[in-house]
Amino acid sequence: MQEFQVQTPREGFIDITAEVAAAVSASRMKDGICQVFVPHTTAGVTINENADPDVVADMLKALNHMVPELNYQHGEGNSRAHVKSSLLGCSLTIPFADGKLVMGTWQGIYFCEFDGPRRRKYRVQVTGQ
Amino acid sequence: MQEFQVQTPREGFIDITAEVAAAVSASRMKDGICQVFVPHTTAGVTINENADPDVVADMLKALNHMVPELNYQHGEGNSRAHVKSSLLGCSLTIPFADGKLVMGTWQGIYFCEFDGPRRRKYRVQVTGQ
Amino acid sequence: MQEFQVQTPREGFIDITAEVAAAVSASRMKDGICQVFVPHTTAGVTINENADPDVVADMLKALNHMVPELNYQHGEGNSRAHVKSSLLGCSLTIPFADGKLVMGTWQGIYFCEFDGPRRRKYRVQVTGQ
Repeated sequence: MQEFQVQTPREGFIDITAEVAAAVSASRMKDGICQVFVPHTTAGVTINENADPDVVADMLKALNHMVPELNYQHGEGNSRAHVKSSLLGCSLTIPFADGKLVMGTWQGIYFCEFDGPRRRKYRVQVTGQ
Repeated sequence: MQEFQVQTPREGFIDITAEVAAAVSASRMKDGICQVFVPHTTAGVTINENADPDVVADMLKALNHMVPELNYQHGEGNSRAHVKSSLLGCSLTIPFADGKLVMGTWQGIYFCEFDGPRRRKYRVQVTGQ
Repeated sequence: MQEFQVQTPREGFIDITAEVAAAVSASRMKDGICQVFVPHTTAGVTINENADPDVVADMLKALNHMVPELNYQHGEGNSRAHVKSSLLGCSLTIPFADGKLVMGTWQGIYFCEFDGPRRRKYRVQVTGQ
């Protein structure tokens, strides 16, 4: 398992595709599943388009409209960030073959910050042979 | 890893359970985890009820209401499809035992199209022994 | 693969972290990926804060506002529960090392009930070495 750190803005999506690909390569495994895990409860991880940065900016805008402002009870005042974290999830799996991630042409892996800025981390676990 | 193709409508959920089950069977592994991966950024994959087709029709209706029409920046005009893709996700894992998927009685695996019609694909990776 | 049962309320999040951790320990594997799978279509599984129970109560409140009341077709009247199930997902993966789940300080694993009360189950599959 490899651990990476990422410095985040107040909110936003950070492309971590290159780091995850390097972790798969470093494992020296040929075929299997790569798992990305975010150990935080107000951040997440998702895969989406990495060609036009407007796509993830639009996604953040949509999430901010979708997750309602309500009379939440949690004292820290960041309940909406917790909800966004669970909507996108903190864990995803990606196949690899010949030591390389097998993703789509337009796909990138994004660390999703909903309650920054913070020094965050994520872990990559490679399973296979 | 096995790759499958699917011809999609403009939007909709296509049941791919039988193909995924066949991929597990073809692997000749007995026990482990089956991963389904969609290499697109305006499509996704989910598990939900396969007994009454109204369920996935209702889900699509709900998603179309939940994901707001906003002043998006992405030039292709399909930002809402990108958001729906990340909400359901492009990757999921399913356990199998004795060479068979271990799912619930009412569960089916659905390829989710949000920006078709297109010729799409998905991949199934089987890990175990 | 190990199977667990859980008695649920009408709706709510039940902390299953200890059971999942015990399943990893019982596998006697040191390193790998633990998969949690919910074989139901109106329930799900998510990871979020387990320190303040208000967080998951707020999440449920947000989901109930986000998933709209519409003129659904599914005859059982629980379409919104099906939608919530797919939004959070029925499957997640967590890394482990030295026989222990490697999660964040504030993270817990929650079985998410959207259409109870019921006697539910979930399965834990451990893959690794």
